[in-house]
Amino acid sequence: MPQEESARHAVDRIVRDMVAAWNRHDAAAFAAAFAADAEFTNVFGMVQRGRAAIEAAHVPIFKTMFKDSELAAIETKLRLIRPDVAAVDLRWRMTGARDPMGNPWPEREGLLNWIVTRHGETWLIDVSHNMDLPAPELAKAQAALSRQ
Amino acid sequence: MPQEESARHAVDRIVRDMVAAWNRHDAAAFAAAFAADAEFTNVFGMVQRGRAAIEAAHVPIFKTMFKDSELAAIETKLRLIRPDVAAVDLRWRMTGARDPMGNPWPEREGLLNWIVTRHGETWLIDVSHNMDLPAPELAKAQAALSRQ
Repeated sequence: MPQEESARHAVDRIVRDMVAAWNRHDAAAFAAAFAADAEFTNVFGMVQRGRAAIEAAHVPIFKTMFKDSELAAIETKLRLIRPDVAAVDLRWRMTGARDPMGNPWPEREGLLNWIVTRHGETWLIDVSHNMDLPAPELAKAQAALSRQ
Repeated sequence: MPQEESARHAVDRIVRDMVAAWNRHDAAAFAAAFAADAEFTNVFGMVQRGRAAIEAAHVPIFKTMFKDSELAAIETKLRLIRPDVAAVDLRWRMTGARDPMGNPWPEREGLLNWIVTRHGETWLIDVSHNMDLPAPELAKAQAALSRQ
């Protein structure tokens, strides 16, 4: 499936570039893979509309909460919804962050989910939602309930 | 834009029916709006693949964690990504739930995000991610950082 290969190739590059941009704390590079009118909902449910707003929102937090943070991609999953529309899940891990109150926020794990579409020759993120994953004990306890 | 109207109408109905199904604790009705091969990622990051698996996963939790829970839709936002592909955000509130350990889990607020597409004459959910929203103080503190 050549479309899926093209999407996979593009998304792998987006993930690699975005993680590198995060780890340089470079807001412009971080925002580069978003479409001009992309919507980004962060882990607190705050919404940024447009690439410029996404960049602007990350400038101050790269100097505060995320100044010493390091991001790693754990797993990227992609599913084509249309030949030019992909649903992407990116599991990530972060160390060295602080929460908005300034408290250490170590060893975060989370899940970004994106709608990535083809814009001419490039693939860009149109919609992004991020979430922190709660303690794995909760998932284990729910799985146990489901086996009862 | 007739496509957008059609999508909006269908999504409003999905939300209404799903909330009603949740509040009857009816797993089959809850799963009805998902495509046969839909993927559902819950608030703990657990993934259910396929409508049948989504239904099966909800049967036991409607008898335990969510036995006395009541769900309400707060706000539905829709954006057409393609004429037959919609990105949907649904803010929700829940009372009366228990967490997987059995502790009271009162006054949850969260955000479902869906990819809803046209399947012939109907619109169905292909991809769903759910998250609990953290305490609003965190969003306020991050907003304050961004104004510094």
